[in-house]
Amino acid sequence: MTATAVGTGRVAAIHREIESSGRTEIFIHLRPVADVEAELAASRAADGPLAGVILAVKDNVDVAGLPTTAACPSFATVPDVDAPVVAALRAAGAVVIGKTNLDQFATGLVGTRSPFGAVRDSRRPDHISGGSSSGSAVAVALGFADIAIGTDTAGSGRVPAGLQGIVGIKPTLGVVSTDGVIPACASYDCVTVFARDLAQADAAMAVMATAAGPRPFPADTTLAASAAPVIAIPSELPALGENWRAAFARAVDDAVAAGCAVREIDLGDFLAAAVLLYEGALVAERHDAVGDFVDSGGDDLDPTVASIISAASRWSATDLLRDRRRVDELRSAAMALLDGVDALMVPTAPAHPTLAEVAADPVGVNARMGTYTNFCNLFDMCALAVPAGVVDDGDPGTAQFGVTLLSAAHRDAVLIDVAHRLSGSDGGPTWVENVSGTVELAVFGAHLRGQPLDHQLTGRGARWAGDIVTAPAYRLVELDTTPPKPGLVRDDVSGRAIRGEKWVLSAAALGGFLAELPSPMLLGSIELADGTAMVGFGAQAQALADGTELTVDHWLAR
Amino acid sequence: MTATAVGTGRVAAIHREIESSGRTEIFIHLRPVADVEAELAASRAADGPLAGVILAVKDNVDVAGLPTTAACPSFATVPDVDAPVVAALRAAGAVVIGKTNLDQFATGLVGTRSPFGAVRDSRRPDHISGGSSSGSAVAVALGFADIAIGTDTAGSGRVPAGLQGIVGIKPTLGVVSTDGVIPACASYDCVTVFARDLAQADAAMAVMATAAGPRPFPADTTLAASAAPVIAIPSELPALGENWRAAFARAVDDAVAAGCAVREIDLGDFLAAAVLLYEGALVAERHDAVGDFVDSGGDDLDPTVASIISAASRWSATDLLRDRRRVDELRSAAMALLDGVDALMVPTAPAHPTLAEVAADPVGVNARMGTYTNFCNLFDMCALAVPAGVVDDGDPGTAQFGVTLLSAAHRDAVLIDVAHRLSGSDGGPTWVENVSGTVELAVFGAHLRGQPLDHQLTGRGARWAGDIVTAPAYRLVELDTTPPKPGLVRDDVSGRAIRGEKWVLSAAALGGFLAELPSPMLLGSIELADGTAMVGFGAQAQALADGTELTVDHWLAR
Repeated sequence: MTATAVGTGRVAAIHREIESSGRTEIFIHLRPVADVEAELAASRAADGPLAGVILAVKDNVDVAGLPTTAACPSFATVPDVDAPVVAALRAAGAVVIGKTNLDQFATGLVGTRSPFGAVRDSRRPDHISGGSSSGSAVAVALGFADIAIGTDTAGSGRVPAGLQGIVGIKPTLGVVSTDGVIPACASYDCVTVFARDLAQADAAMAVMATAAGPRPFPADTTLAASAAPVIAIPSELPALGENWRAAFARAVDDAVAAGCAVREIDLGDFLAAAVLLYEGALVAERHDAVGDFVDSGGDDLDPTVASIISAASRWSATDLLRDRRRVDELRSAAMALLDGVDALMVPTAPAHPTLAEVAADPVGVNARMGTYTNFCNLFDMCALAVPAGVVDDGDPGTAQFGVTLLSAAHRDAVLIDVAHRLSGSDGGPTWVENVSGTVELAVFGAHLRGQPLDHQLTGRGARWAGDIVTAPAYRLVELDTTPPKPGLVRDDVSGRAIRGEKWVLSAAALGGFLAELPSPMLLGSIELADGTAMVGFGAQAQALADGTELTVDHWLAR
Repeated sequence: MTATAVGTGRVAAIHREIESSGRTEIFIHLRPVADVEAELAASRAADGPLAGVILAVKDNVDVAGLPTTAACPSFATVPDVDAPVVAALRAAGAVVIGKTNLDQFATGLVGTRSPFGAVRDSRRPDHISGGSSSGSAVAVALGFADIAIGTDTAGSGRVPAGLQGIVGIKPTLGVVSTDGVIPACASYDCVTVFARDLAQADAAMAVMATAAGPRPFPADTTLAASAAPVIAIPSELPALGENWRAAFARAVDDAVAAGCAVREIDLGDFLAAAVLLYEGALVAERHDAVGDFVDSGGDDLDPTVASIISAASRWSATDLLRDRRRVDELRSAAMALLDGVDALMVPTAPAHPTLAEVAADPVGVNARMGTYTNFCNLFDMCALAVPAGVVDDGDPGTAQFGVTLLSAAHRDAVLIDVAHRLSGSDGGPTWVENVSGTVELAVFGAHLRGQPLDHQLTGRGARWAGDIVTAPAYRLVELDTTPPKPGLVRDDVSGRAIRGEKWVLSAAALGGFLAELPSPMLLGSIELADGTAMVGFGAQAQALADGTELTVDHWLAR
């Protein structure tokens, strides 16, 4: 459904485009043009971090005053308050244009399981959009929104990103609040974000993450990938057609060209867990979430979704415990394969089916779509889906190809850093730094990039953050160390401005650094050229006879 | 059963005492005297941290070459290797004397549910020992072992400690390996330790924790209680008789006398969770663990245990998910009540029943015994059970009274620190420091205890670790700060030895400290009087014209 499109602004244009293109299945609810335009004007005036950004919200996430249907009208309720993630985005300037269509109860990876209609691909309307966050991904791909909230349990925040050629961030489980979200499989549900580029997605996640979940980033959070990132790739590529294998091979070549080392691993344990998500007792959580409603049998239930959820009531507690134990065993084995690896890279989606192919085999095709995504949440991994060109799959037009980078919990910043490097960028701050305790450190001499001790920084997950210059009040002197190291000493008389670098690292990394600090190195406040101060490396020098010496017994050893 | 007692050593004496006192129910398996004596001699010669310490192991934990029965002979297997915690203790010098009796499959808090006989109280044989780690606790109480391994799911590492007047440490779930342990309720099982005093228990746990579980201490682990600890106590004391209430009141008075602040809280949410442990679907984990065996109906099954475990198969996966969600809700509410609290203090056991009372109502009495323990593991809390005098419960002799200190996960060191302060001690290192990354910091002047800035240390969970003295090469000068602070500067010419303090803190705490360091304070390597070096506070002083100045462009700002 859409509201009447009036006015001359961007929102009115979007409404007209939705109508004229006949893509009314993308949104379940569109807010009135005038309301959205007015909020956009106010947002631009307030100039928040997301000023003027148009936000679409998957319809299993609460927006105050709009029905939350989860693509099941008879299930709908109208919340009084925004979900915390929505509230955070709106407070930062994002303006909600509407609620998007999805696979009913977020159960599916195809985008066709909805009484509001199958959400079609943004480029090839006879193909699926991918799901369950189908409307959110297509809205962003078609420019009907700048960012969109999705949710992800089995890949719903990644598969549609891959098929629509956009970016999807699936953060570590628990770091972002899932309050105000209709659960799919509560133990594994995450709120995700879609955007057309990584910078926009990262900016949105930086805001969303301030709606903190129960599991914040630890005090030793890694903020960057290794200096020479190691990427693991599957030694075999199940469910992937020949042209899709070629597309993945190109992505691997690009990674190597960008300076990454590539290591092949056996994906067997990952795939074994993926199967358990729907074929084992873990699916019982879907009945726990909405089973009582589904069992009552409303006529707007999607038959495939209803059959999956109703069948999920048959499992015993012992079955669930057994399958969870099995997942833990598989996870331990799988994570061991990623030791020393910055990111696992896999195809995001293995194929781009037509609507007809899904209709012919709704469960089989859906299962295939989750080949490279289902294991992620079960293994408590974070993920980043990025575009990686196109692939000719034989149908008219070309399919979008995407890869997903994955790593262990709380290594979200590593994934974004790797993605930056794949694009030849120097990286930069990520959303993680906005919600994890980090500190800045000024380094000089042997700790500068490319100098003998820079590994002390990169080895601790520190991130290079640019060049700095001290106030003209320092000298860099040769220290009496082996090998001789330059040390920064204050000299207000004959000092000069010294070139250094700013690094960002976790509090624990800085503390560990300090604990190993050899004499005469020290860490203290360094005055910079712009008059600001930053904690940085210096060297202990003899004290001049300044200050008032305290010689009363209280301060002296007895 | 016991081996023949021969020889003149301590082990032979223990065997004779077991025989003469008729306390053969305590051990399920005793190792031959000669073997144990020989290992003790070797242990004393090796002089490890637990040299000469006699260890008893609960018989649901593997000791290589001895049957692991879990108090069910027909269930027994003989492991080839020690459980990791046992291996760690033996490597440190502890010598296994035997395997102890327990409530079958660790299901119970009474100590009577065993085909090897009910384990009787160490002082009043017509009363229960408490369970399920009954034999381990009584063996320590009677001096048949110096330390003993227990396990704890609902209170099995605490209730018997309380009734036997000894110390029991229940560490945070997951920090100590449970490999080689027969699971009771796997999601909540912990390996624990008993000893006659806190120092011995702490020393043992320091070794056991090196057998790391899946959940290490975080980089910002708190190492000490607040300078003025706040202790929460229940506003009501269910299941407690009048004299037991008086005993608890005395313990509270002692805490106040020791300088603790006391805050009453409503224990309702804690007690509601306690009920769920056995009366809800959570018990399904007991069937998951050994249900198939129990359902086959061996004739050495304890009828009460068998009925509990067999009944646990009836729950559905949805029931389990519902009850776990309920536990999470209760936990959130309960933990909020402990905000700003160092430790919750409760009676360890509410009563000391007779064997006859348990026989008359095996389930009811058992449930009552768990009133103050069942919630702990469900709420992911750590716990420390310590003796707190005696109580006249009307029966001949007196009952031992104990209190348990509890706190949130990973605050194990806080509990031990509180216990030290209750005993008037200055505290000291705990087992936590042996397995969490900590650093030492030398402080001077305003950061010394009682000085204006010591809160910067105590507020970060740092622990005071003693006085230090610098090498005679420093001066403490008045810094140009507001208010003026003394700063330590190096002066090899006219320096003197300065008195300071050593503090221990987490790497994250030190890093956070440094990030806020105001100029001209610095942290660097300080030379101590004994010639060693420690990172500590100094002040930046002007550099003397020493060293070779590096003026090539490479080091200078452009």
